[in-house]
Amino acid sequence: MAKGVLNTLVHHLAPFRLGASSLPSHLVLGVGLTAMTAFTVPDLRISIGVWLIICLWGCLAYFAIEGALRARAAFAAGSARRYLLSSSCWVDLLSVIPVPIALVCGVPPPTAWLFASLWVVKLAQYSSGFAQLGRVFVLEAKALASVLVLFLIALFLASAVMHVIERDGQPGAFGTLPSALWWAVVTLTTTGYGDEVPHTHLGHLLGAMVMICGIATFGLWTGILATGFAAESRRRHFIQTWDLVSKVPFFQTLDPAAFTEITHMLRRVEVPARTAVIRRGKVGDCMYFIAEGEVQVDISPAPVRLGAGAFFGELALLGDLIRTANVATTQASTLLILDLADFRTLMAHHSELARAIDAEGKRRLSDNQRRRELHAQDAFSS
Amino acid sequence: MAKGVLNTLVHHLAPFRLGASSLPSHLVLGVGLTAMTAFTVPDLRISIGVWLIICLWGCLAYFAIEGALRARAAFAAGSARRYLLSSSCWVDLLSVIPVPIALVCGVPPPTAWLFASLWVVKLAQYSSGFAQLGRVFVLEAKALASVLVLFLIALFLASAVMHVIERDGQPGAFGTLPSALWWAVVTLTTTGYGDEVPHTHLGHLLGAMVMICGIATFGLWTGILATGFAAESRRRHFIQTWDLVSKVPFFQTLDPAAFTEITHMLRRVEVPARTAVIRRGKVGDCMYFIAEGEVQVDISPAPVRLGAGAFFGELALLGDLIRTANVATTQASTLLILDLADFRTLMAHHSELARAIDAEGKRRLSDNQRRRELHAQDAFSS
Amino acid sequence: MAKGVLNTLVHHLAPFRLGASSLPSHLVLGVGLTAMTAFTVPDLRISIGVWLIICLWGCLAYFAIEGALRARAAFAAGSARRYLLSSSCWVDLLSVIPVPIALVCGVPPPTAWLFASLWVVKLAQYSSGFAQLGRVFVLEAKALASVLVLFLIALFLASAVMHVIERDGQPGAFGTLPSALWWAVVTLTTTGYGDEVPHTHLGHLLGAMVMICGIATFGLWTGILATGFAAESRRRHFIQTWDLVSKVPFFQTLDPAAFTEITHMLRRVEVPARTAVIRRGKVGDCMYFIAEGEVQVDISPAPVRLGAGAFFGELALLGDLIRTANVATTQASTLLILDLADFRTLMAHHSELARAIDAEGKRRLSDNQRRRELHAQDAFSS
Amino acid sequence: MAKGVLNTLVHHLAPFRLGASSLPSHLVLGVGLTAMTAFTVPDLRISIGVWLIICLWGCLAYFAIEGALRARAAFAAGSARRYLLSSSCWVDLLSVIPVPIALVCGVPPPTAWLFASLWVVKLAQYSSGFAQLGRVFVLEAKALASVLVLFLIALFLASAVMHVIERDGQPGAFGTLPSALWWAVVTLTTTGYGDEVPHTHLGHLLGAMVMICGIATFGLWTGILATGFAAESRRRHFIQTWDLVSKVPFFQTLDPAAFTEITHMLRRVEVPARTAVIRRGKVGDCMYFIAEGEVQVDISPAPVRLGAGAFFGELALLGDLIRTANVATTQASTLLILDLADFRTLMAHHSELARAIDAEGKRRLSDNQRRRELHAQDAFSS
Repeated sequence: MAKGVLNTLVHHLAPFRLGASSLPSHLVLGVGLTAMTAFTVPDLRISIGVWLIICLWGCLAYFAIEGALRARAAFAAGSARRYLLSSSCWVDLLSVIPVPIALVCGVPPPTAWLFASLWVVKLAQYSSGFAQLGRVFVLEAKALASVLVLFLIALFLASAVMHVIERDGQPGAFGTLPSALWWAVVTLTTTGYGDEVPHTHLGHLLGAMVMICGIATFGLWTGILATGFAAESRRRHFIQTWDLVSKVPFFQTLDPAAFTEITHMLRRVEVPARTAVIRRGKVGDCMYFIAEGEVQVDISPAPVRLGAGAFFGELALLGDLIRTANVATTQASTLLILDLADFRTLMAHHSELARAIDAEGKRRLSDNQRRRELHAQDAFSS
Repeated sequence: MAKGVLNTLVHHLAPFRLGASSLPSHLVLGVGLTAMTAFTVPDLRISIGVWLIICLWGCLAYFAIEGALRARAAFAAGSARRYLLSSSCWVDLLSVIPVPIALVCGVPPPTAWLFASLWVVKLAQYSSGFAQLGRVFVLEAKALASVLVLFLIALFLASAVMHVIERDGQPGAFGTLPSALWWAVVTLTTTGYGDEVPHTHLGHLLGAMVMICGIATFGLWTGILATGFAAESRRRHFIQTWDLVSKVPFFQTLDPAAFTEITHMLRRVEVPARTAVIRRGKVGDCMYFIAEGEVQVDISPAPVRLGAGAFFGELALLGDLIRTANVATTQASTLLILDLADFRTLMAHHSELARAIDAEGKRRLSDNQRRRELHAQDAFSS
Repeated sequence: MAKGVLNTLVHHLAPFRLGASSLPSHLVLGVGLTAMTAFTVPDLRISIGVWLIICLWGCLAYFAIEGALRARAAFAAGSARRYLLSSSCWVDLLSVIPVPIALVCGVPPPTAWLFASLWVVKLAQYSSGFAQLGRVFVLEAKALASVLVLFLIALFLASAVMHVIERDGQPGAFGTLPSALWWAVVTLTTTGYGDEVPHTHLGHLLGAMVMICGIATFGLWTGILATGFAAESRRRHFIQTWDLVSKVPFFQTLDPAAFTEITHMLRRVEVPARTAVIRRGKVGDCMYFIAEGEVQVDISPAPVRLGAGAFFGELALLGDLIRTANVATTQASTLLILDLADFRTLMAHHSELARAIDAEGKRRLSDNQRRRELHAQDAFSS
Repeated sequence: MAKGVLNTLVHHLAPFRLGASSLPSHLVLGVGLTAMTAFTVPDLRISIGVWLIICLWGCLAYFAIEGALRARAAFAAGSARRYLLSSSCWVDLLSVIPVPIALVCGVPPPTAWLFASLWVVKLAQYSSGFAQLGRVFVLEAKALASVLVLFLIALFLASAVMHVIERDGQPGAFGTLPSALWWAVVTLTTTGYGDEVPHTHLGHLLGAMVMICGIATFGLWTGILATGFAAESRRRHFIQTWDLVSKVPFFQTLDPAAFTEITHMLRRVEVPARTAVIRRGKVGDCMYFIAEGEVQVDISPAPVRLGAGAFFGELALLGDLIRTANVATTQASTLLILDLADFRTLMAHHSELARAIDAEGKRRLSDNQRRRELHAQDAFSS
């Protein structure tokens, strides 16, 4: 039972889960970055310097081996040229080579090991979802560049005027344009260190305008990214779901328009083996299609196993939303979730789908009935 | 009349209203947190310490009783196991147990009572809407994690470079990587305390880039949450409204597609008893369906009562938008609001609905007419 | 011609334009607030105090008269009770009464006049669009309240922990919970004054987490408001446009679905008299329907006037996007703008609309032709 | 091959690319602004002042010539009046005239050259996309103005109250209303310099409320801009794509509704000459239509050239997503990209389009087959 609780936890945390294979790499990365950070503190270098050095060399070795394995695999697969041009190759090189080179060149170790901060880029290598963020930036590049130009214009004009206003009163802070530019950046981004602050009334007025400009620019920037991200998110979701939907025989009978519509609605979730998906008595707000894997439905007299292509959990949606049986995976499975809201919309628009789900439900009930009678007969005859 | 004004106020503030049952708990919570905060100030501890202690123990007792009642109810309902796993149980335990344990262990009272700050978590217990925010984070977890990785990469690289640039000039602020990391966090989040500020030109340039990165990261983060929240908001609204819409007989005659469409349009509002919903002479921009409860329409010769399933306020939308009668609830009611914009769109798309509303309106008018004639006859004959 | 240029400017600035009637009020408000601000500066009070006092009393008198007129109008219209409950009445009272009362009670003038800062609330009275922002807050109240609860939880827990971590090192800044709460607010909102900054490594770590929480909370907040505003914006636009669209005979022949669709697309703009709307030779990306007012099309031999219900500018959209004639308003007009993108979508979906616009265009061309021939005959015969 | 890699890079960076013609102007602008900034630093003025002066005069001359050429072109084209009213003309004048005038008037050179900061406005002149941002501001002006009014109200009330609370304790920072207003601006925008910070408990409470108001205002502002930008972005994209889509004969056979639909889906990209568009063996997630230009498909026995109006890359989408041939541009081309998600949606909704693409694909395959047989015959007979 403790295992069941753990699995449930894992199930709920699934979206946050790292890929199983990258877990050791993440651990090494965390240890390495911590050791590198500690190595810059003189006190720690004196007290536990030896252990830090061992730790750092160990991490470097790990990344070197990891990179070498990846390179060998790429060369073995005959895709050497594509690998050499890939960002993965460059990240591997950048995390392994700079430190030894710096040490060989005579750079003192505390400085040389600073190159180990490049290891953090490996996080991007291990994490998916970057392509998506990148696409948003590329597609909205023109609009984002316009905002940046607005930012630059405000920056230069504000710092030039502030330089004129405040240079006599504060020659240190606003005496040169570079200093005034520093003030303008700090203010436009609403960071506000407070190391350079206008003192005159005119300076305050200009400062207020710069801050409001900063907020406006920031708002535009956020608006553009939000718009772009919404479009990209819809697109990616559709692509990811399409292939899985194609595998479910139930959907293959749909006409193409309905097929497209349902693909937009389904959400993919990956569930590890022996994990509860549905608990009897809970309120249910979605039904499940099995794209890959297998689940077991605990109904009397004997549990039923459903394989890829089957669906379950629709009874609660058709009735009073209370789950009537426990369902758990028997192996790692990929499920497609259809939310209650979408389920109802779909039933309303596609009567043939409603009929099919209804028929399947009835068939399953009668099946169940028959099995129970057989079971009763068996019990009677035995 | 003062009551009427109060009720109107309450009606307009309804969305902000706390659930009636949780009001005492909120009061106790507010008093408790204030007393706990005051108890950390030595002056107050000396002057009114006794009262604060009484206050704190009182709140603790209240929460203990509240938790015990909840636990007993759960055990009585036979759902003990589910309760023990629920967050509600943990919040109850965390708000009651730590302070006594700390006091018993000999922690000085001002420190022990700091554990009372955990009471603030009870706010989440009393407030709905958390599930929704949680779902947004879970559904967008992958994208948010990518932004966090971007943030970490910028953090480490910026602080390593800044450490190299500024360590000679400011050994205190940038002499070690942990200090430089602190600067980078403060700057990337555009907080900008100003306790550590780069002084060199190169440092200023890097700082400017870090701030702009911070804004970009922040914009992405906001964009992702906005996208996710929009989707989740649409979904939740549909689910909440569907059940209420099903209760209105008028909608049950609609074909499923129209039913789904109108469910997306209706908005739920809960109105307390004896509250004005419509005021004669005001401009009206919506009509109402009664999902639960009853309203009274003040028309001559005698007011008419409409119960669950009826609708009102449609005359203004069909005519010149001026309300022709006062309508007030007679008991706590749940109304479904259909905005003018949606009303018109719906009438345009579903002629059968338009006809039905029209017919009902006419029936009501003629009914009214007949009643008025009867009334006149009565008055004549009497 | 200078007037033409001015009008063009006014036309482009129209969306920013204050209502003509409120311009004097805005001026008085600006002068009053400036005088009030200046009156708090001792130097100015000594040098130009008399003028400031005159100015302030003048503004107060203006607002008193304005309020009295509004009240008289309301009482004359018999809507006294509604007026007394309206926010407008309260704003009028709050801007006029407090200062004299304070002066009478013996409050020194520089302090008494501070109540004049309440005048700024009149800005809300003069400005429309507040209802809309208010609706967004009301509709999304539940979600916003959840974010606020998250904020409060983070606030209390962070300040309690930080108080424990830093109270020994910095008894002044973190020695009591109220001080620590102040730090937490300043940090969670990413304001970052820098008056209280953690100094220990543990404090830095917690501070970093608080900042990231702050950004996350902020992002959620923004996302909720963006979602709510998008919905509210669509709704308000539809309502505003519907009535104007109903006035255009051309649209009345449309079936209801097309009517609804076009209402979603049209955008309202108010143009002052004698203002150029279209300039010959410019690139055109929209066509215009006249909801109210009149325009003059400068075509040879003689200009043509088009009144309410007519449309113009469609020739450029059907052809090569170059405007073929100047069009200017002859009186203040309300135009409905149909963008090129929407025009094409509409033409594609509603062939009867395309035919009608085409027919009208041809009729106008042949009309023009006939008039030109008549003109030529006249010239010949004369 | 190095050229191929470079071209691929250029292709991926294309959205960030400056127009080829404006590159020298951007360089001159960068040099000029840097020189101007450096010229305000006394040390640099002494050491390399002569070179900076030469640089600045050179840039001024460049901009003068650029402006003169633009003016001559406008006068030659007979559009002098429109040019004189255009912003382009004003920017040209502002970047050239102020500095000489200031020098002639006897302003010391370091101050006179500050007017060169106006050059930064030329960035807006070179960059497109500003019209779009401007439209968002104009269309949402009313809502944004309401937020600004909210901001002003919070500003005035907060600073008046804070002035009363803190003036006795900190006469320097809060003794006058202008100082308190400065604090309020710095706090409401969450800039937080920390030069003026409330010290009393009441001041902290008010400060906390002001910060939360600041975040709320900011969130509204961002939400409005996000909503406006999403609408404007959709509109602009449609207009830009429509003309290109009209040039592709394949789309001209579509009925208007399908034509409109596909226009919403296509994305424009400009590819320089001799650049790889598709690489054999890569995973493909889009197909391409050629709006302008020409590409070469490397298939055996001989490469095939496709000109404007043709499409390619559809085979991967119909099959297993693996590209089967290299495709590269032979000249600078404008391609229309149809994403996999949209491709599938389109195929589902428009069977005639699916058939047409299928037929074209088969025709191309058989063509290819025939050519290969001919090639084989040739080889045999030769």
